[in-house]
Amino acid sequence: MTDLSSHVHDAARRSRSAATTLRSVPRATKDAALHAMADAVVERRDEILAANALDVDGARAAGTSDHIIDRLRLDADRISQMADGTREVAALADPVGEVVRGSTLANGLLVRQLRVPIGVVGMIYEGRPNVTADAAAICLKAGNAVLLRGSGSAGRSNAAIAEILRDAVASVGLPADAVQALDASDRSSATALMRARGLVDLVIPRGGAGLIQTVVTQSQVPVIETGTGNVHVYVDADADLDMALEIVLNSKTQRTSVCNAAESVLVHKAVADELLPRLVPALRARDVTIHGDAAFAAHDEAVVAATEEDWETEYLSLDLAARVVDSFGDAVEHIRRYSSGHTEAIVTRSLATAQRFTEAVDAAAVMVNASTRFTDGGELGMGAEIGISTQKLHARGPMGLTEMTTTTYVVTGDGHVR
Amino acid sequence: MTDLSSHVHDAARRSRSAATTLRSVPRATKDAALHAMADAVVERRDEILAANALDVDGARAAGTSDHIIDRLRLDADRISQMADGTREVAALADPVGEVVRGSTLANGLLVRQLRVPIGVVGMIYEGRPNVTADAAAICLKAGNAVLLRGSGSAGRSNAAIAEILRDAVASVGLPADAVQALDASDRSSATALMRARGLVDLVIPRGGAGLIQTVVTQSQVPVIETGTGNVHVYVDADADLDMALEIVLNSKTQRTSVCNAAESVLVHKAVADELLPRLVPALRARDVTIHGDAAFAAHDEAVVAATEEDWETEYLSLDLAARVVDSFGDAVEHIRRYSSGHTEAIVTRSLATAQRFTEAVDAAAVMVNASTRFTDGGELGMGAEIGISTQKLHARGPMGLTEMTTTTYVVTGDGHVR
Repeated sequence: MTDLSSHVHDAARRSRSAATTLRSVPRATKDAALHAMADAVVERRDEILAANALDVDGARAAGTSDHIIDRLRLDADRISQMADGTREVAALADPVGEVVRGSTLANGLLVRQLRVPIGVVGMIYEGRPNVTADAAAICLKAGNAVLLRGSGSAGRSNAAIAEILRDAVASVGLPADAVQALDASDRSSATALMRARGLVDLVIPRGGAGLIQTVVTQSQVPVIETGTGNVHVYVDADADLDMALEIVLNSKTQRTSVCNAAESVLVHKAVADELLPRLVPALRARDVTIHGDAAFAAHDEAVVAATEEDWETEYLSLDLAARVVDSFGDAVEHIRRYSSGHTEAIVTRSLATAQRFTEAVDAAAVMVNASTRFTDGGELGMGAEIGISTQKLHARGPMGLTEMTTTTYVVTGDGHVR
Repeated sequence: MTDLSSHVHDAARRSRSAATTLRSVPRATKDAALHAMADAVVERRDEILAANALDVDGARAAGTSDHIIDRLRLDADRISQMADGTREVAALADPVGEVVRGSTLANGLLVRQLRVPIGVVGMIYEGRPNVTADAAAICLKAGNAVLLRGSGSAGRSNAAIAEILRDAVASVGLPADAVQALDASDRSSATALMRARGLVDLVIPRGGAGLIQTVVTQSQVPVIETGTGNVHVYVDADADLDMALEIVLNSKTQRTSVCNAAESVLVHKAVADELLPRLVPALRARDVTIHGDAAFAAHDEAVVAATEEDWETEYLSLDLAARVVDSFGDAVEHIRRYSSGHTEAIVTRSLATAQRFTEAVDAAAVMVNASTRFTDGGELGMGAEIGISTQKLHARGPMGLTEMTTTTYVVTGDGHVR
């Protein structure tokens, strides 16, 4: 194992220098860079595809599963999507310079809290090489330099994309080091990135639970935790059952491999006899395997008996844990115990119950009579997102451009002293 | 060394339960608790003073310096100040429930981002027992349960204060476990608090650089870093020199032991010949020891030659590092190199220069023609503060009630699916 820490430190110092320049670059220049980036990934598509083919060959030779290879593989469409995503970021408002709060104090001091870039952002991610372009675009628009540490298996793809982005950034007169891909050939580059206090201001992990756990427990640089979603839909005694059926089906099956997909359904006993005979076959018709309690099992012999593990699991597949609860309070207790704090949903016609649920449940997003799939930066009108935070500090829920900034108090006086 | 981790875990579980209740307590009840807390520390002053006397005796027997003992010692006045501080928190608006952002999306979904409590907050602090009451009041008003881990030397004082606060909280029907003091008899309780991921949502260290460094590098719970202030005042070529003199003197000498006191002054060479003959004697007249460069030394033989260490040091005393710089750019470079990102000040009459300084300097607060001593929650009109954050995530600068909350997206639909 080589030690990549000096490689990371050198890169981080160059990032810091680039970040110093980016702090005061006007929006027009940043948008010009983003359009140049979008144009360049399309124009130089063949370079990316050639590098990606080598990564795919390598992954196949290493016996990687088809599922993972599919995430790794790029084609012309996926590259167009990268470019489109970058152009969408260019179209978003610049958060830098926004006056968050402002007032004139009794003594005449003028206080303004201004949005400013964070500085140097480290991304540690797995699989999909499109994250390289997405993260670079969001970080640059918010005035930050980014250090991209993708997975080793996508190393050639990420390096090719980053090189093209760097050229594009430089073409508008901004420092190429605003975007840097780190050598991911062994773990030491991730470790060094997590230890680079003073050089790196923030690390964002994106990937599976193992990666995120490693980063949040080992990092000495502040981290924003993303992703794990053990998401529940609670069907209340006062639910509209047609609506409940649609929301459960959509939350579970519209896309299964994402963090905002439902993993458990809790049904109030008052509506169980009416809902389950409709819900169980509808789920089965969409190939969902139900891991249910006795009440669910009574409706279909294909229901698998749920264990403690089922309540805890983020399946990310066509599996659903299912339970009938005796009361609203039992539903809340279950959610409090097993929720990962990502998204929790209630279906109810009762305003009071909706309000109580919103107050009682501690999650990044609470859905009332809506699918859990709406916890998404694009769906919530924030534009591009760099991840969904499941922690409570700094950013909670979808993280867009605003969440990639910090603030400074600017206090202007006329010789004021205490 | 005993292992206090099970003590900490038990307390944290009780905190979590209390926090669940506190989430939805209305302001009036929280304010009633705060007034009961203020009344109780005054009424039961003798219990606090008796416990404090034992702590002071213990510290004296251990050979603790007079300076530290003075910070540890309580008297009737200091206890009244605790009560006043608690009542001031009661008078502040409740941040919980504030709608931070809200909109109705094109598809009719109603999106609101609401302020909610963080949950369980751990405080790790040194010295002054008044932090026990201050932190408890701010945490409770923002709907959080607090775990107080003060220094071992103040253990009896903190335990007595916490016991009184708990009784007061319970007297209005709220859970006493909203406020808990941890056994501080050895380090293991601090370590356990920093490792209690999942039970504790946030740890805030308050104290010297060593304590803060330990917490930020070892904690697995998210941390807000507070405090170190290597603060500069830059006197620009376009400065009003009368104003510059007053601002430097006030920033350095109004109170020296605090993080927003100035530690270095940088003077543009264009005004050095005029300013230094006034500034050097004025600082000397206030017993300031100047650690200066050759230009400063030329004005007074009592100026000590500055070393690299002086530029890096947060003196917290009547010492000041002082340098003449050749240009605005040199001043910014010096500040970028040595600043701890707390407060930086410029004295100038030039609007353009003030603007360039604000853009170039990356700090929690930038003062233009005002004393650095204004970086303070009370001075900036935020009311009580729990510390001054010098990190970029979540909170930067003085942390008041707003900074002790997080947010939830509440999304209300009418059967919306994707």
